[in-house]
Amino acid sequence: MIPRYSRPEMVSIWSAETKFRIWFEIEAHACDALAELGVIPKEAAQTIWEKGNAATFDVERIDAIERETKHDVIAFLTHLAEIVGPDARFVHQGMTSSDVLDTTLSVQLVRASDLLIADLDALLAALKTRAYEHKDTVTIGRSHGIHAEPTTFGVKLAQAYAEFQRCRARMMAARAEIATCAISGAVGTFANIDPRVEEHVAEKLGLTPEPVSTQVIPRDRHAMFFAVLGVVASSVERLATEIRHLQRTEVLEAEEYFSPGQKGSSAMPHKRNPVLTENLTGLARIVRSAVTPAMENVVLWHERDISHSSVERMIGPDATVTLDFALARLTGVIEKLVVYPENMMKNLDRFKGLVHSQRVLLALTQAGVSREDAYRLVQRNAMKTWDRGADFLEELLGDTEVRNALSEDQIREKFDLGYHTKQVDTIFKRVFGDS
Amino acid sequence: MIPRYSRPEMVSIWSAETKFRIWFEIEAHACDALAELGVIPKEAAQTIWEKGNAATFDVERIDAIERETKHDVIAFLTHLAEIVGPDARFVHQGMTSSDVLDTTLSVQLVRASDLLIADLDALLAALKTRAYEHKDTVTIGRSHGIHAEPTTFGVKLAQAYAEFQRCRARMMAARAEIATCAISGAVGTFANIDPRVEEHVAEKLGLTPEPVSTQVIPRDRHAMFFAVLGVVASSVERLATEIRHLQRTEVLEAEEYFSPGQKGSSAMPHKRNPVLTENLTGLARIVRSAVTPAMENVVLWHERDISHSSVERMIGPDATVTLDFALARLTGVIEKLVVYPENMMKNLDRFKGLVHSQRVLLALTQAGVSREDAYRLVQRNAMKTWDRGADFLEELLGDTEVRNALSEDQIREKFDLGYHTKQVDTIFKRVFGDS
Amino acid sequence: MIPRYSRPEMVSIWSAETKFRIWFEIEAHACDALAELGVIPKEAAQTIWEKGNAATFDVERIDAIERETKHDVIAFLTHLAEIVGPDARFVHQGMTSSDVLDTTLSVQLVRASDLLIADLDALLAALKTRAYEHKDTVTIGRSHGIHAEPTTFGVKLAQAYAEFQRCRARMMAARAEIATCAISGAVGTFANIDPRVEEHVAEKLGLTPEPVSTQVIPRDRHAMFFAVLGVVASSVERLATEIRHLQRTEVLEAEEYFSPGQKGSSAMPHKRNPVLTENLTGLARIVRSAVTPAMENVVLWHERDISHSSVERMIGPDATVTLDFALARLTGVIEKLVVYPENMMKNLDRFKGLVHSQRVLLALTQAGVSREDAYRLVQRNAMKTWDRGADFLEELLGDTEVRNALSEDQIREKFDLGYHTKQVDTIFKRVFGDS
Amino acid sequence: MIPRYSRPEMVSIWSAETKFRIWFEIEAHACDALAELGVIPKEAAQTIWEKGNAATFDVERIDAIERETKHDVIAFLTHLAEIVGPDARFVHQGMTSSDVLDTTLSVQLVRASDLLIADLDALLAALKTRAYEHKDTVTIGRSHGIHAEPTTFGVKLAQAYAEFQRCRARMMAARAEIATCAISGAVGTFANIDPRVEEHVAEKLGLTPEPVSTQVIPRDRHAMFFAVLGVVASSVERLATEIRHLQRTEVLEAEEYFSPGQKGSSAMPHKRNPVLTENLTGLARIVRSAVTPAMENVVLWHERDISHSSVERMIGPDATVTLDFALARLTGVIEKLVVYPENMMKNLDRFKGLVHSQRVLLALTQAGVSREDAYRLVQRNAMKTWDRGADFLEELLGDTEVRNALSEDQIREKFDLGYHTKQVDTIFKRVFGDS
Repeated sequence: MIPRYSRPEMVSIWSAETKFRIWFEIEAHACDALAELGVIPKEAAQTIWEKGNAATFDVERIDAIERETKHDVIAFLTHLAEIVGPDARFVHQGMTSSDVLDTTLSVQLVRASDLLIADLDALLAALKTRAYEHKDTVTIGRSHGIHAEPTTFGVKLAQAYAEFQRCRARMMAARAEIATCAISGAVGTFANIDPRVEEHVAEKLGLTPEPVSTQVIPRDRHAMFFAVLGVVASSVERLATEIRHLQRTEVLEAEEYFSPGQKGSSAMPHKRNPVLTENLTGLARIVRSAVTPAMENVVLWHERDISHSSVERMIGPDATVTLDFALARLTGVIEKLVVYPENMMKNLDRFKGLVHSQRVLLALTQAGVSREDAYRLVQRNAMKTWDRGADFLEELLGDTEVRNALSEDQIREKFDLGYHTKQVDTIFKRVFGDS
Repeated sequence: MIPRYSRPEMVSIWSAETKFRIWFEIEAHACDALAELGVIPKEAAQTIWEKGNAATFDVERIDAIERETKHDVIAFLTHLAEIVGPDARFVHQGMTSSDVLDTTLSVQLVRASDLLIADLDALLAALKTRAYEHKDTVTIGRSHGIHAEPTTFGVKLAQAYAEFQRCRARMMAARAEIATCAISGAVGTFANIDPRVEEHVAEKLGLTPEPVSTQVIPRDRHAMFFAVLGVVASSVERLATEIRHLQRTEVLEAEEYFSPGQKGSSAMPHKRNPVLTENLTGLARIVRSAVTPAMENVVLWHERDISHSSVERMIGPDATVTLDFALARLTGVIEKLVVYPENMMKNLDRFKGLVHSQRVLLALTQAGVSREDAYRLVQRNAMKTWDRGADFLEELLGDTEVRNALSEDQIREKFDLGYHTKQVDTIFKRVFGDS
Repeated sequence: MIPRYSRPEMVSIWSAETKFRIWFEIEAHACDALAELGVIPKEAAQTIWEKGNAATFDVERIDAIERETKHDVIAFLTHLAEIVGPDARFVHQGMTSSDVLDTTLSVQLVRASDLLIADLDALLAALKTRAYEHKDTVTIGRSHGIHAEPTTFGVKLAQAYAEFQRCRARMMAARAEIATCAISGAVGTFANIDPRVEEHVAEKLGLTPEPVSTQVIPRDRHAMFFAVLGVVASSVERLATEIRHLQRTEVLEAEEYFSPGQKGSSAMPHKRNPVLTENLTGLARIVRSAVTPAMENVVLWHERDISHSSVERMIGPDATVTLDFALARLTGVIEKLVVYPENMMKNLDRFKGLVHSQRVLLALTQAGVSREDAYRLVQRNAMKTWDRGADFLEELLGDTEVRNALSEDQIREKFDLGYHTKQVDTIFKRVFGDS
Repeated sequence: MIPRYSRPEMVSIWSAETKFRIWFEIEAHACDALAELGVIPKEAAQTIWEKGNAATFDVERIDAIERETKHDVIAFLTHLAEIVGPDARFVHQGMTSSDVLDTTLSVQLVRASDLLIADLDALLAALKTRAYEHKDTVTIGRSHGIHAEPTTFGVKLAQAYAEFQRCRARMMAARAEIATCAISGAVGTFANIDPRVEEHVAEKLGLTPEPVSTQVIPRDRHAMFFAVLGVVASSVERLATEIRHLQRTEVLEAEEYFSPGQKGSSAMPHKRNPVLTENLTGLARIVRSAVTPAMENVVLWHERDISHSSVERMIGPDATVTLDFALARLTGVIEKLVVYPENMMKNLDRFKGLVHSQRVLLALTQAGVSREDAYRLVQRNAMKTWDRGADFLEELLGDTEVRNALSEDQIREKFDLGYHTKQVDTIFKRVFGDS
């Protein structure tokens, strides 16, 4: 996470201030439950809330204490005691640091999920708008980078919409994976703390109690969470790559918006480069790079070791902040994308009817020609177009073997673009429903 | 995938024979739908089923044709024509190779999922049995590899059970991710094939029609699938690592079953090594290594490129076969695990009561000592045990400052093991329900 | 490793037959050294060589023994005893299994390195030939997928040559990394075997004695080896991607050779797809996927654990066989690449002189215009070309502000292609030397 | 890179101030060469140096300009013009942004390499000191986590020394990989800039001219660089894991230094956890996670795309800062490591002589017993120790079959620890030379 690729709301989730505030809330909620159970005085719980809510936690001071104790939660509790006074001794009763740390991480990842889901919603809205706008904008479909058959630009965007809808569902599942709370003590046995404390804190924070924790919340949850971020990032890269391809000089079917004052190159004033989507390609690699360490984190020793901690201190902010930024950037790119339908048509015509080869092939087999012969007949005329720019239709009309099977009219009717787009409504209905 | 780490049922999903059989079924189901729609004669569809069902596809022959055409589906269709005769020209009408290939991959991954889910069920059953068997077998819980507080061996296994239950739910979701069917033509526009063909084939194969495909089924689905395998593998590694730790010479609380005739070392006849769980650690790395290429596969160019294909030809079998083997091996390890409760107790006693330090700490704060002072008091006595093996209880009883706050009886009652296991039933109920 | 992407010579390195033959040679060389040191009878060493050399090791039989002993080296030694007779008891004296296994892996990886280096040499030769052939074939250089300035196709290939020359140097270093031998006993202390045995075996096998081993050769060596394979594979992907881009329908500056009889698509007979280079893109992902598990393998417990073994049984063959195949395929692609210089020139002209924008910019600054003003002047004329296809030269000639600084002749002379290629000889001399 | 895991010297390499200073120096060195070639006035080059050296570049101001131009190098040049005045128009003549950016990255990575090599030297020094200190401290060697045969703690450290010596050599090679300079213009053809400018700048900065660049320095170099960091990090994790194992409660053969005032657990005052080495395990995962994106970066489109840039902005600082911190932390751990030789001896005795099993095996075969029989004899006595704690020596002495082959004296002499350490001097000489 670096400022250049960060947005403030996601960054603030990972600030020291936010973290200490969540720590306090967990401790204070736990005090409420402990007071309810009669373990500590109700007045103490009340004082803790009041003084804590009124206070600003002094990050510098807490860091200074940690430098001595080499333990962050103890440093915080010491500082909290400075704020709360004698009642502070009722804080953290029967709890262990990880009860606080792990539940806090859950809260942070839930909040990050909510931002990412909102990002996806914005992206979906942009995709839908542009998809309907270009529902009938005919363009060539390509496989292997080679012209295949016509489709519409709207269908391309509908595909992206469907993909990010799946990403949204995965983010919802990922959110559920990490929305758990553990207040279960040193090895998860609730030896010193009643399970009802965990239930109370979980409820207050919108989390679910972890069925069985072992000082820590098991890291398969977090591995799954970061794996989902990696998949979403890969889908970002796919759409970004599509746009980079469309903006290539020789293709130029669409282009990132180029703002007045922007400069494409310090040396070549003519350049308009797809820098945003290139950038997204790189950001996707960064988000994906969190997946393997998150999986390596699963294998903690016995009830827990602390190797996961340093990893999460970095990939937690890095992966969520970067993905948030990437999704927002992609949304902007889609919203402002400059589309060139006339270039799409020009490119489509480039192959002089070759894209209709399959229809001719099918017509030949329908007319009784064996599949192998039909393929041979079509391919030999297609290669003339490919090799020396011949007009595919003219070549077919002049091929005696083809004409033995099909009349001129039959051949000509295979060169109708509308044939290819007749199911676009069906596809849109599948993707967007009846809206 | 290598024979040493393979089981036949999963391997057979990936055989050439299975693949060609699924190809045939997709083509033949499509013919049924095409015949129903009046595109091809009903008799042709019937003949195709009859001759195809009766035939054994000749893998060698298909390979030979492919060497000439350099195209696998065309090679298969040519061979199918040799079997079916003239009606073969009605096969594959309006379809493209990927309609067959991608839907086949879906069928294979669904079958693989079913085996993996069955594997997980077997593992869960083994874990549950052993967890109940050792529900009350007290053992030390460890954090950082250091003794923390007592737990039971059953709780350890309950934790693993809960983790693999989550893995099972993830596998179900992964199965749903890839259980889609695409029969949508060259760029997914259904230009030459009616969407009802796709619906028919999907239904017959137990799949869902892909809402919008682009010659191929989008690879974010497969990325998600392999990511889940990577998470499951990481959980396998976690449990395997637990057992490796427990079998260490100095710990020896549990041990892999060592069969008569087995040899641990060619040089050292005394050795009994945790080779199965060490092996599982390595296999987990292999399964995880499929995740990144699967994510890189998402970014196909335009409607599709074929870079994903070679990756999937390898990670498809490799990851599923290896994980199937690993889960089965882990199940065997758990079923036959030799547990040494007496060693668990011996290890627990090693620290002479130190594991009760938190209870003393809490008692001191309850008795009015400040948290910081209580910590200092407990730590100074604990360090005597740590540094020179002193008895923790005796030291506490002899510490005037401690005794000012707590009576001998109060201190002694903090050294009760039962205190730590009183919530085991609660945990089991959370994990296993009321069974 | 699957047959489709394998070549026999590399595959044979990893066969059971090869493995057992190397095992035998290590044991027999060790016997020579032991005999020389007087530990075992010289006649025994001689008998072992004679009977072993004459025998074919029975893989089935060894596997059968291993199924009982669950130990592969013991199984082999048992079988060797069946062949050699009573003198077999002198085999493996003071050695441990890993002495054999690890040294064998070194021999296999060294042989694999030699094949890969030969592959690189063949690729370098092909690149050099084609580079000189197209040394002066002018083509547009592209950054961001957008036309930048002219270069030559030969320079593109010279760049690839330089990159694979670096890869060759890295493979040589990787070979040196793993060319070590360990015959040092159960924990590497030479307790039961004289270090001179290791020295003798190493010398005979063309290896270096490992300075300090711990039953196993340290795995940082292997991690480095596989990391190098990953880098080489990435360079393969880079060149493959270049060709895929050049073959795009709209670009078509070069094309993979398309053999007679080949079919590009089962549905679209007109297709000629860059399937070989797309395939290489996928294979690169597979080779790279070995890097992370190889690095995870470094972290063995204490003197060794066996988690690395299953990983290496798979990535050893997989990564080397796949990279060998990929390099050979890439060499074939380069050798037979169909280049279209006229299309290169047509594409270059597409922008109507825009590629000369930097020269005009520089001329303006040389003529006293500030850098910022010059940029503005050039950009405003360039955008007319970009936006509505205006001729860049004509626009500049008609721009009063430009003409205030530069004469018509001065402007026209900036539109000379030769200006861009004047340093090609320098570059070739840097890359290929004076050859 | 986060402050918690950072050291100032490495961090400063990546500051905006450092970056702009290197940018300036590259531009100014280029001006010197351009002046020498007569392209720009010598006085201009002099003025640029003088004013630039005297100035502090205003990071805020440059950022503000970049927000408008969306181009960082142009923003810097604009700011430089504000400082230098009219002569600024001679800056950057014929150069392109990447000439500056890529050469700067080389300078930064070279400086980072120098720090990392110094870190490794400090670690090597610490390892050597402790290795000699414990050259003869006998300890049990372990394979599979199970006692194998005796070694010394010094040999363990010598192994680590040899491993980090290899890492040092790899870092030197990695430094050489990225120590190149490119001043070659928009597509690397030197169209607008004489190659002698590149040679001059390279020499002044201690770099080598890149033989053939394409606007950018090829990224296989950087991939190799980060791959080496990944291997070094894995070696850090290996040594860290060794210490974590040695500190386990049941083993306790060595322990991280625990400072006065430090607290191991907020809940359990008795804890002394190996938190530094656990932390290193996590940091290794982070450094390794840079390897895959760095390899993905190799595959730039045509002469270049900019997808690598965002990746390097993150992994450049992250991987080098984290590894620098990790190496320094590991050095501190080794220097202050508390070693418990008496615990080593206690653990070694735990198996009641079982570690000598191989010697007895060899003695039996020397005495004429077949290898298979010898193995069986030793194993049956070993299992008695393993299963019920019998004394291995006593059991052997009481086994008639064994005694038929070996006398009591012969058996007893196999139980000598010195036998195992007799080659320690040889090993040290191999690793440390004759020092």
